[in-house]
Amino acid sequence: MGGRRMGPLNTQRADVFRVPCRGPGDLAGVQALVDAGELNPADIVAVLGKTEGNGCVNDFTREYASVSWCRWLADRLAISEGEAERRVALVMSGGTEGVLSPHFTVFTRKPAPPGRGGKRLVVGRAATRDFAPDELGRMAQVQATAQAVAEAMADAGIASAADVHFVQVKCPLLSSAALAKAKAPVTHDTYESMGYSRGASALGVALALGEVAQAELSDASVCADWARYSKRASASAGIELQGNVVVVFGEAEGSASPLRIGHTVMADAIDAESVRRLLAGLGGTLVNLFAKAEASPNGAVRGRRHTMLQDSDLHATRHARAAVGAVLASVTGETALYVSGGAEHQGPPGGGPVAAIVRVAP
Amino acid sequence: MGGRRMGPLNTQRADVFRVPCRGPGDLAGVQALVDAGELNPADIVAVLGKTEGNGCVNDFTREYASVSWCRWLADRLAISEGEAERRVALVMSGGTEGVLSPHFTVFTRKPAPPGRGGKRLVVGRAATRDFAPDELGRMAQVQATAQAVAEAMADAGIASAADVHFVQVKCPLLSSAALAKAKAPVTHDTYESMGYSRGASALGVALALGEVAQAELSDASVCADWARYSKRASASAGIELQGNVVVVFGEAEGSASPLRIGHTVMADAIDAESVRRLLAGLGGTLVNLFAKAEASPNGAVRGRRHTMLQDSDLHATRHARAAVGAVLASVTGETALYVSGGAEHQGPPGGGPVAAIVRVAP
Amino acid sequence: MGGRRMGPLNTQRADVFRVPCRGPGDLAGVQALVDAGELNPADIVAVLGKTEGNGCVNDFTREYASVSWCRWLADRLAISEGEAERRVALVMSGGTEGVLSPHFTVFTRKPAPPGRGGKRLVVGRAATRDFAPDELGRMAQVQATAQAVAEAMADAGIASAADVHFVQVKCPLLSSAALAKAKAPVTHDTYESMGYSRGASALGVALALGEVAQAELSDASVCADWARYSKRASASAGIELQGNVVVVFGEAEGSASPLRIGHTVMADAIDAESVRRLLAGLGGTLVNLFAKAEASPNGAVRGRRHTMLQDSDLHATRHARAAVGAVLASVTGETALYVSGGAEHQGPPGGGPVAAIVRVAP
Amino acid sequence: MGGRRMGPLNTQRADVFRVPCRGPGDLAGVQALVDAGELNPADIVAVLGKTEGNGCVNDFTREYASVSWCRWLADRLAISEGEAERRVALVMSGGTEGVLSPHFTVFTRKPAPPGRGGKRLVVGRAATRDFAPDELGRMAQVQATAQAVAEAMADAGIASAADVHFVQVKCPLLSSAALAKAKAPVTHDTYESMGYSRGASALGVALALGEVAQAELSDASVCADWARYSKRASASAGIELQGNVVVVFGEAEGSASPLRIGHTVMADAIDAESVRRLLAGLGGTLVNLFAKAEASPNGAVRGRRHTMLQDSDLHATRHARAAVGAVLASVTGETALYVSGGAEHQGPPGGGPVAAIVRVAP
Repeated sequence: MGGRRMGPLNTQRADVFRVPCRGPGDLAGVQALVDAGELNPADIVAVLGKTEGNGCVNDFTREYASVSWCRWLADRLAISEGEAERRVALVMSGGTEGVLSPHFTVFTRKPAPPGRGGKRLVVGRAATRDFAPDELGRMAQVQATAQAVAEAMADAGIASAADVHFVQVKCPLLSSAALAKAKAPVTHDTYESMGYSRGASALGVALALGEVAQAELSDASVCADWARYSKRASASAGIELQGNVVVVFGEAEGSASPLRIGHTVMADAIDAESVRRLLAGLGGTLVNLFAKAEASPNGAVRGRRHTMLQDSDLHATRHARAAVGAVLASVTGETALYVSGGAEHQGPPGGGPVAAIVRVAP
Repeated sequence: MGGRRMGPLNTQRADVFRVPCRGPGDLAGVQALVDAGELNPADIVAVLGKTEGNGCVNDFTREYASVSWCRWLADRLAISEGEAERRVALVMSGGTEGVLSPHFTVFTRKPAPPGRGGKRLVVGRAATRDFAPDELGRMAQVQATAQAVAEAMADAGIASAADVHFVQVKCPLLSSAALAKAKAPVTHDTYESMGYSRGASALGVALALGEVAQAELSDASVCADWARYSKRASASAGIELQGNVVVVFGEAEGSASPLRIGHTVMADAIDAESVRRLLAGLGGTLVNLFAKAEASPNGAVRGRRHTMLQDSDLHATRHARAAVGAVLASVTGETALYVSGGAEHQGPPGGGPVAAIVRVAP
Repeated sequence: MGGRRMGPLNTQRADVFRVPCRGPGDLAGVQALVDAGELNPADIVAVLGKTEGNGCVNDFTREYASVSWCRWLADRLAISEGEAERRVALVMSGGTEGVLSPHFTVFTRKPAPPGRGGKRLVVGRAATRDFAPDELGRMAQVQATAQAVAEAMADAGIASAADVHFVQVKCPLLSSAALAKAKAPVTHDTYESMGYSRGASALGVALALGEVAQAELSDASVCADWARYSKRASASAGIELQGNVVVVFGEAEGSASPLRIGHTVMADAIDAESVRRLLAGLGGTLVNLFAKAEASPNGAVRGRRHTMLQDSDLHATRHARAAVGAVLASVTGETALYVSGGAEHQGPPGGGPVAAIVRVAP
Repeated sequence: MGGRRMGPLNTQRADVFRVPCRGPGDLAGVQALVDAGELNPADIVAVLGKTEGNGCVNDFTREYASVSWCRWLADRLAISEGEAERRVALVMSGGTEGVLSPHFTVFTRKPAPPGRGGKRLVVGRAATRDFAPDELGRMAQVQATAQAVAEAMADAGIASAADVHFVQVKCPLLSSAALAKAKAPVTHDTYESMGYSRGASALGVALALGEVAQAELSDASVCADWARYSKRASASAGIELQGNVVVVFGEAEGSASPLRIGHTVMADAIDAESVRRLLAGLGGTLVNLFAKAEASPNGAVRGRRHTMLQDSDLHATRHARAAVGAVLASVTGETALYVSGGAEHQGPPGGGPVAAIVRVAP
């Protein structure tokens, strides 16, 4: 797990930069922040990007953005592109349907004298070991993820699960190569394996945060028992890794960050009220929202039929991002929001977790 | 222009039924209202449907729904399907992206003793003469539409333009056959002719309602001078007619309807506030919203780039309906809303008119 | 099973009419044949249509075309629309990608004095009993289909399986209502149930024609053992029936038809050579081709990667119809061909059955 | 114009490598050729790639592939990425619909002793000056392109237009920035400007090759007079340049290449016969085909209606590539073919130029 190690970690200062881009390979805005002395590339620990592809299987805008970031980081930090990829958690989410606007959210942290303004944003990271193909989408992945969440909380200086507000997981999938080595994989389909991996990862987060009890979970729970879920997990599957990378976003006393974070759960795709309450409670100026969206699996929103799951021209995740993105934009007046699809065990069926980071008086 | 003629027209009673459907050909919900004695087929003057196609060129769900309605009306009223089509203004708008739910809004009116509750909903209709191919999309269509709006206002018993809140126009397009007869048509492209016809129709509404002055308009204004628009027009082009059909929705003293109507304009696709104010001002229980949506033509929403106009996989009108539909659903808690795309001269660029019909104490 | 019963069935005369249409509801070309005295509506036993939808879940052009045909038949034959649907096997296949042209192929048969020109086209039909939800996609459906194929062969006057060249099956799916009644259905997913139903139906055809032995088949074979398939089956799942309808197309001595039929199998999507050989062997003038198309499930065509299965913007069946349709059009010089997607156990993986009907000297 | 200059140019040796890729950023196959000593990066003069995007406006696979190539060339040749872009003509064509397989075709040339086997492949390049925004899509671009074709012929050592078989042009478009500087641009729409630029470039090729006379052309011809076209032009518009880059592929005596090239024109999308004749005439082993495809603008193929131009879910260029790609694959047995969409003045309406490069006895 890359980046420079923190000392006593609640003396860190975490910052967040939201940077618009003109395309998946456009880092001019990021470079401008560096040139202006606002952003130090060496402090970057994670990037959550929204790129303008379809967010589904053949979305190359994610890979293109990741490659561009690796190249840029390698050049700035005089390291290899492989090292850059290990150092920074690059999570690219495709799909800016409707009003959503492509952008990168860049997270930094650096040592700092303790702040005295009360709880403020902290960021922590950890990684699991690599998984065997037969472990993916099963309890082995659930438990390793839970362990990594605990480690990332320690890395962030967070003592209580109540202070965790968003957990981003990057998780592997079963590639053709992995499937060839597997004995009894959870699925033989690469695309389906992405859902299982996200689902097991989210349940791992739920387990670590006490949202679900160990006794409630078994291999059979993953992508089946939808009543078990995390209100704070956001998982994204990618082909470039074999273990999970976990980034925990929460709050701690003593953090020197000028930012706060909170979370809520949208009960369904049009639940603007929950987000309005979250933002009113947090105060401050919005830096970004982080939300998961999905088409309600029962085929209805508030009792009325929707057509997202029957549309063979347009994937349901694209419909869902367009809808949730517009609702959140109407609440915040801002369209460069992180709204991601594919929400297995991430929030209730048809709804999803939402975290908000806001800038407050330091 | 079909339907039974009204006497003194402000003694009419207008009703509105919102009926979900399971597909474009499903009129079981409508029939159930008839069987329950709530709806008299002979009173129907207009149907505004949302069907689950792509809302673009090859959307056959609109035609399928229209054909199903003609058949149903012909059977119920013992008339021919052609007569049914002339009697009732059937406006089918394709596209229920995101959370939107397919449904029909059925408008009826019948003679009734005057109501005494103040201004209430009235509906009026009129039609222009058939247009020559070279007139379409030009001042001839603008002026004939304005004249028809005035006639429909009279038919509704509305004296002042201030009491008009929504004007639905069905207008022709330039088919290949029409183009073959044209000398100097506004365009040689059938698809483009739909935009010109909608645009000229909307400017006709604006002219009739005093939103634009005669002197401000010329042939060159249509689909060019976007600063001229109506806040109350909704236009839809179809191949089955040669002239415009106009349906005016407004209010009049003496109407016996239990419904009220009001309107506003969304300044952009995420302007929930304008609609919230409209509904708060009207009071009552929502029967339906009627809105036009479009992707902001300058490529940005509140200063941030959107990607709707560059998406070659998904037409911008589909993006826009998904976004605006979700915003309106989040305001109303209801997803069976009439949100239609293609808003030339219908509201400001990137925004659009919204009308609300609500049920109040009778 | 409708239509007038034949006497000694190899004294029938079968005819085939290929009729272009301007849309899914356009039967003007069919009516013109009736008006010209060429087609007697009472003789129609089956219609295979290509309509211009996406051929996937939300393709309403199929339903729209079927409804239009029922209405037209009901009017012409003075029967109810329900009777029309039972009388004529209406099989609508969506998707005319690439050069393919929307059209209907109308099959008629009527009693006739025996022909003396050798083997000629005969058509026969039969139906299975209705299936219980738990039988669908399993051996019960396989065996009942095999039995119905035998009956349809008898109805056609075909004695030997070698004289059968194409078997079109319409089969049910597991609707939500059916799933609610099922105890242990083959799948809980409506869309997946279509594949299982088509697969079991195709295996039933293979069993009846001796292409697969009873001992080789079990419940576990369906949609799993791809080495078992029919070279002559074409199956299509629809929501409007509970049992299978089977139409057998083959040849018999004594048929008075001026048509012949033959079949081949395309080994892959670009196997033009097999079709060229088929047509050269048959001689005569092409009336229509009937083909099944699918994206090669191993992700390659002749060893080169294809991208059809990874394209989240465009369903693989649409890619496959575009490709196979163009290849067949390049062989025949004709684009109004019946090319249908979804080929479970219908031809080898990545390839598919092709039948040709040609007009020969009578 | 980059690359090392040739001496007497018909003593060059041109080679062509067709390299499959696993994605737009995958150059492992290219690197393997280098590692095996078969390909010298310093000899590369052009790359024509097929990438797996939609080939339309938001196809980032083209940019991603170009960026990857620039990076790779810069690393191998120890030059900047900007120099790499100027040195090698990188033409990335998006869209591998149907059976088409993503790949790169790499063209090299190097000095060599004269060959004595008769006419063999030669490659030549040239560039125009940068165009003013108002020149684009007009005679200025036509004439400058014609001049560049003549220069590229000289660079290739080709004396007669009859020996030119394929001319690939990369041409600019009118970006928003360019439009802001323009006084009277041919269009104010960026997307439309791509068609005008391709059209003017193709007419420039036609003029240079004597396919069209100077007197037949004026500003008004571009994208209007479809009877004027080149049988050998292939044009592609991109945002990264302001002038045209021209690569001429032809034959010359004395070339030391083991390859030959020829061309034909498909009369329509299913004209397999023309290509079969071309290949039979050339002999040898196919290295690659280079073809342009388009949906017939009159809405019909061989008199039958097609639906490509009405499909709002799937762009006509995607339909056309799927169809033409499959036809060519069925002729050659090979799916990694260069089939590109958007064929203004490149071949007859609905058809397009096809060039074949084959390996013959040296």
